[in-house]
Amino acid sequence: MAQTENSTLQESLKQVSELLHRHQLVETLIHRQDMPRHDLVESLVHKQHLAELQNKLDQLHPADVAYILETLPPDQRLMVWDLVKAERDGEILLEVSDAVREALIAHMDSHELVAAAEQLDTDEIADLAPDLPREVMADVFRSLSAEEREQLRAAISYPEDAVGALMDFEMVTVREDVTLEVVLRYLRRFDELPDHTDALFVVDREGRVHGLLPLNRVLVSDPKTPVAQVMNPQPTVFHPEDKADAAATAFDRYDLVSAPVVDATQKLVGRLTVAAVVDYIREATDAEMLNLAGLREEEDIFSSVWKSARNRWLWLAVNLVTAFVASRVIGLFEGTIEKIVALATLMPIIAGIGGNSGNQTTTLIIRSLALGQITAANAGKLVTKELGISLLNGVVWGTVVGLFAFLLYRNVNLGLVMTGAMVLNLLVAALAGIFIPLVMYKLGRDPALGSSVLLTATTDSMGFFIFLGLATVFLL
Amino acid sequence: MAQTENSTLQESLKQVSELLHRHQLVETLIHRQDMPRHDLVESLVHKQHLAELQNKLDQLHPADVAYILETLPPDQRLMVWDLVKAERDGEILLEVSDAVREALIAHMDSHELVAAAEQLDTDEIADLAPDLPREVMADVFRSLSAEEREQLRAAISYPEDAVGALMDFEMVTVREDVTLEVVLRYLRRFDELPDHTDALFVVDREGRVHGLLPLNRVLVSDPKTPVAQVMNPQPTVFHPEDKADAAATAFDRYDLVSAPVVDATQKLVGRLTVAAVVDYIREATDAEMLNLAGLREEEDIFSSVWKSARNRWLWLAVNLVTAFVASRVIGLFEGTIEKIVALATLMPIIAGIGGNSGNQTTTLIIRSLALGQITAANAGKLVTKELGISLLNGVVWGTVVGLFAFLLYRNVNLGLVMTGAMVLNLLVAALAGIFIPLVMYKLGRDPALGSSVLLTATTDSMGFFIFLGLATVFLL
Repeated sequence: MAQTENSTLQESLKQVSELLHRHQLVETLIHRQDMPRHDLVESLVHKQHLAELQNKLDQLHPADVAYILETLPPDQRLMVWDLVKAERDGEILLEVSDAVREALIAHMDSHELVAAAEQLDTDEIADLAPDLPREVMADVFRSLSAEEREQLRAAISYPEDAVGALMDFEMVTVREDVTLEVVLRYLRRFDELPDHTDALFVVDREGRVHGLLPLNRVLVSDPKTPVAQVMNPQPTVFHPEDKADAAATAFDRYDLVSAPVVDATQKLVGRLTVAAVVDYIREATDAEMLNLAGLREEEDIFSSVWKSARNRWLWLAVNLVTAFVASRVIGLFEGTIEKIVALATLMPIIAGIGGNSGNQTTTLIIRSLALGQITAANAGKLVTKELGISLLNGVVWGTVVGLFAFLLYRNVNLGLVMTGAMVLNLLVAALAGIFIPLVMYKLGRDPALGSSVLLTATTDSMGFFIFLGLATVFLL
Repeated sequence: MAQTENSTLQESLKQVSELLHRHQLVETLIHRQDMPRHDLVESLVHKQHLAELQNKLDQLHPADVAYILETLPPDQRLMVWDLVKAERDGEILLEVSDAVREALIAHMDSHELVAAAEQLDTDEIADLAPDLPREVMADVFRSLSAEEREQLRAAISYPEDAVGALMDFEMVTVREDVTLEVVLRYLRRFDELPDHTDALFVVDREGRVHGLLPLNRVLVSDPKTPVAQVMNPQPTVFHPEDKADAAATAFDRYDLVSAPVVDATQKLVGRLTVAAVVDYIREATDAEMLNLAGLREEEDIFSSVWKSARNRWLWLAVNLVTAFVASRVIGLFEGTIEKIVALATLMPIIAGIGGNSGNQTTTLIIRSLALGQITAANAGKLVTKELGISLLNGVVWGTVVGLFAFLLYRNVNLGLVMTGAMVLNLLVAALAGIFIPLVMYKLGRDPALGSSVLLTATTDSMGFFIFLGLATVFLL
């Protein structure tokens, strides 16, 4: 009986590390050459460790080998990779992260790459395609049947976030005029059914989808029943150009395991499974988290300093520009600050809380947009609500910061300016927090990308402007 | 043939809104009483709209009704809710968001709530339990069989993020010594199999799991084969106390559809399905996004201003405290700023870029911790790498901001102080970005919660301190 997989996986990682360690110890001894007479013995021990390691790797699921490869430093990673059986290369390449995949592919020659790709289904080759050298892809193409070439070309042609890029081609189809008995006989001719086959696709002679025949119904129904009578004639279907996000929502909402993908004429062109959808959800979430922090792509723990630094530059550059702008806004009021230096100590409070409050609003708007909950009918209510919250928060927190300023500098007017600036900047934050993501959405851009930078730029510059402006008017 | 679900759903929403609108128009007319003679006619039209609406709702999937309820303002929401058939109340309550569920439950009397709960499976009742009044739960308990009570008690007892809280109890079990023919006959006695039954659980007389019999193999194998010969004797199993996160990773990694949940003696206690896992992933991601912005719980678009404001206070209060600290750090250097007012305009740049850079590091560390990629062996490399990146970025961006300061104020020393402060604060940011999430993780807390506030507090205060301190030493 297998244990919970997570603990076994940690166990495997430990064993692999240990074997690698012992292996490297022996290697070090051999290279030191300080016991030349024992060469033969050591070389045997050495080989034995590698054999043990190889044996261990052979027993692991490809996803687990991928995990181990990701966790090892580059030199050990390549050593383990060389021990993996050639016929498993393809499935493991599919599982590793982008950064590690690049490194492994760079380490393989074209012959090995072609062999690895040929082990895979066409939809899987399509996933690897962007990372494979051009001549390797040409060789792979040549090795495929005409139908497979067509599938591969189709799969490559869709953008990453379209259903077409996630679908596979392992459909089992039946006709609606046969009985379940015939279906059962037909299925028995397979060695095994494709993974995630929870239903057969019912198609006509032209390949148009007429319904879905859940395997469960095949099993519980009388074998004499015709397919048409037990099939679901209104299944959820997808089109290859549909957004993967929408498909993920549908899989979640309707608890799907697999669904047909059809073209405009309802002809079956592929299959979408929950496994592909789960992969997509997890990768999309991961990418979103990275993007929120301004990382353009994932970084392998062992990526080089140079490569990692460049990955982070775009964001830092953008933020530097907005910081320069904010700095020049403050510069407008140098005369005021020279007279009341307390302003310099207090101004970051107004800007900072404005940014925090605005980011709360933006996060809720982005979420509601993603869930499709913002309509023309309720947008007005939303604005009113957020402005109401800002006014309430402005009065509450504005009073707190006003008191803070008053107690520090014993100046009532300074306290009042703080309070006023806080109220105004929170209103600015609410408006910017609503309209920045809405405008990006209307322009067809992903509001999760960049809304936060634009928002902070607004609340910083406006916060400094409002506070120092009010101070110039009322305190000088 | 159903279209892609997303467009049909938008269509449904539009129809419901239209019917509601027409209904309200008639209501307004009736209430105005300006055409008393037409009362009867209007009341008929009125009824007709409601009947049409009810008919439309009856055809929708519970998840779609839930979506419509979430999108409608509170008054229309309750009107639609009253039109939903009582026997669908339970399944729809399961699908709506927490905020909307609370509102709907508050609107129902105990009798209706007990009736709704009784429509559900025990694991589903457990999901609703936290929101149901005590006396309703007592009534529900009384209506259950002894076995169901036991299941409900078990399901309620696990924390939200444990496998036990996600599992259901719809297992179909077989013995290993029978043939597939017997299995097929046994299955045919069911009216239908539970959703997501991709495999039968092979158990012994004591209920201990011996293996998994995929339905696919039942279909393709010779009916005379004994179960023991085709079952998978080493299935992935979970324990009720396992973390849901680990289970989600396993489902993703091994492409599972359903898996047995067993106790310490390997006895079957429940079943985990990919549908529950997908729900969990999407809810956990959503909660993480909200928490990143300092929102304690989700907010319904139509939540009251007062309730929403309180939801956001904790975060604003924490940030206010850190802003006060940063403000006092600047206060230490008021004398310096009085002499060189340019420092006030430049200091937010040092603090801001430090915060951005540190957040990039923290995000990568949190991600690597979640993927289990940080080990004692590679932690050292990680620190070296991040410090290297910071040094490189410090020199690059430090030179840029140094030049900016020099060009603005024609002061070489001021430029050099900017550059030096940038290098130092980016090093601080890298160290804080690594150690804050690591320490939180070691203390058993979720590093995604609060790391970012602590980090920004550090980079702000240290940024001001380093920059103004260097200026005091070298420029006065």
